[in-house]
Amino acid sequence: MPAFMPVGTQGSVKGVSPRELRELNAQIILGNTYHLFVRPGLDVIKHFGGLHKFMNWDGPILTDSGGYQIFSLSKLRKITEDGVEFQNHIDGARAFISPEIAIETQAALGSDIAMALDECVPYPCQYDYTAQSAEMTTRWAKRCKEWKAENAQRSTSNAQRPTSETDSINSQLSTLNQLLFGIVQGGTFEDLRKQSAQAIVELDFDGYAIGGVSVGEPEDEMMRAVESAELFLPKDKPRYAMGLGTPPQLLEMIARGMDMFDCVLPTRLARNGTAFTDTGTLNLKNAEFARDKRPIQENCACPTCREFSRGYIRHLVKAEEILGLRLITLHNLHFYLELMNRARAEIERGTFDQFRKTFVADYKTRDAMMIE
Amino acid sequence: MPAFMPVGTQGSVKGVSPRELRELNAQIILGNTYHLFVRPGLDVIKHFGGLHKFMNWDGPILTDSGGYQIFSLSKLRKITEDGVEFQNHIDGARAFISPEIAIETQAALGSDIAMALDECVPYPCQYDYTAQSAEMTTRWAKRCKEWKAENAQRSTSNAQRPTSETDSINSQLSTLNQLLFGIVQGGTFEDLRKQSAQAIVELDFDGYAIGGVSVGEPEDEMMRAVESAELFLPKDKPRYAMGLGTPPQLLEMIARGMDMFDCVLPTRLARNGTAFTDTGTLNLKNAEFARDKRPIQENCACPTCREFSRGYIRHLVKAEEILGLRLITLHNLHFYLELMNRARAEIERGTFDQFRKTFVADYKTRDAMMIE
Repeated sequence: MPAFMPVGTQGSVKGVSPRELRELNAQIILGNTYHLFVRPGLDVIKHFGGLHKFMNWDGPILTDSGGYQIFSLSKLRKITEDGVEFQNHIDGARAFISPEIAIETQAALGSDIAMALDECVPYPCQYDYTAQSAEMTTRWAKRCKEWKAENAQRSTSNAQRPTSETDSINSQLSTLNQLLFGIVQGGTFEDLRKQSAQAIVELDFDGYAIGGVSVGEPEDEMMRAVESAELFLPKDKPRYAMGLGTPPQLLEMIARGMDMFDCVLPTRLARNGTAFTDTGTLNLKNAEFARDKRPIQENCACPTCREFSRGYIRHLVKAEEILGLRLITLHNLHFYLELMNRARAEIERGTFDQFRKTFVADYKTRDAMMIE
Repeated sequence: MPAFMPVGTQGSVKGVSPRELRELNAQIILGNTYHLFVRPGLDVIKHFGGLHKFMNWDGPILTDSGGYQIFSLSKLRKITEDGVEFQNHIDGARAFISPEIAIETQAALGSDIAMALDECVPYPCQYDYTAQSAEMTTRWAKRCKEWKAENAQRSTSNAQRPTSETDSINSQLSTLNQLLFGIVQGGTFEDLRKQSAQAIVELDFDGYAIGGVSVGEPEDEMMRAVESAELFLPKDKPRYAMGLGTPPQLLEMIARGMDMFDCVLPTRLARNGTAFTDTGTLNLKNAEFARDKRPIQENCACPTCREFSRGYIRHLVKAEEILGLRLITLHNLHFYLELMNRARAEIERGTFDQFRKTFVADYKTRDAMMIE
């Protein structure tokens, strides 16, 4: 059953409070390990008892491994079989991340779902590099599983020890309840996607993600990459399509067997004055909305549409008032979460396919796909 | 009984939603006529049925006359007996405001309390200019009253007419229920403050404001200016000290008979990471707060202190997350509103003077007075 995860990059879903997330019925949110590692730093989050307590969110949290941001944001990175050496984008401090460190870090954050460390290759990417990289990602995935198995074990046997190591034990204990997802890579090559999916599934994870999609490739190549991998994923485990996407893309992904998504579009476009509707996006900066008394979308039950007009929100955006981006963010997150609810209901009714086709046909993509 | 008005400059109290203002028990907010006149413009706000409906705030609103911002923000202003010609600071469009236009504009906004147009002289200012200006402010105040009397009259006699003039009639009708406050000027000169207060009171307004304070003068001169005017204000009408101030200043003003205040400090300092407490301000950017699990202020009942630590808020501020300034804004507004509640309770108990002395003695002003 499909679920959308709002992105809480730096320990906050941008512009939104935990209370508002609860009111939006967000079931799970995503935290970015790389960002939290760089600032405020792991020791601070451990001091506060983990990410849930630090940010006051008691629902589930999925953390990524940090790999994606290391590849997209950091400087001077050097990838070896061991792991990745990098300088962070804030103060340039050097750091090293290995598969083991990625899992230890996520254990310290105390997230409910951790992701294995992977290498996300760019688009386009040579076949040979993609193949070697996907194989290394598999070896890294194995090391992630092994570290977890060993440390969950050790923490159990050590649980009696009343020592100053309490902190360290606690962070290990939390790995016991933490699920671990493996990530399929393989770029846009069908055979590599197949091989990667088979190898990762072989390692037996709690769930499977498809990574390395929505990195600039044409949409049909993205769909084919997902289809190629999906064939080999077990039916009884969650499947997570990473970093996706526009509303039509999510429905297409659901049609292809995906059921977990994270995407910065609803929060990022909101900060740019753009709102989602069933018929496409609205740029609320446009003069046409200045006297528009309608809500962003008629019959929308979100806190924004129940109380505020397009005209007022346009004024707030033009005047650079924070409330403007807050109101659009609430609407956009509600739109994405509600789209998942609708998809769930249509699936149960057996009418999902018709729903998807109608929705995709009615939806006009007015803005270029601005993903990550 | 003292009341604090959060400042909603551009149709929004910065960073806060109307619902949050209600939950903070804000009794009344302030709107800036100049800003709203420039953007989105009067015609837009009239189209939405007035400022209350436009911003979805059904509590009382006080609007200023626009004069203060014309003097502080606009370009190329030319003051004559008639009014002020200016170019706004957004697109440089020329406009003219007279005492009559100021009241007509506020009637169109539909605020509950309108302010007479005044000239707020800078500090320091020559005695002669200050005297002439205060006299002109009195003549302008008289014209404001006259315009209101005539138009309230006219709208009553026209109320039957079912015509296309409905809009215009509505905006005039709203002047019927709108209170009008006069403003005392006179700079830092005791005799001018006295003369101005007497002349303005002579005109008989619904309430009286003391303007031209907190414009850069030393605090003791500000106190003296207020004291000089206060002596001549009627005891049974509200007294509004404009643009004030720090928490100790508000208590000192209450001790001097003032009971309405507006100030951007709680919202503006919040955006800079600064929070108010009983013992002074905290700059939450400081490294000392990184691991601080305490709320901004112990035993504070605000939504921020009930849920979030200093350490988390510091992280949000450092990471430039919007939630950081939102949380501090909520706390700061609660602090100011609660300070008024405490003052009210102490007045009723007859212990206000002791409360004020203790509070002022314990409060350290760590930041320079950043009052605009």
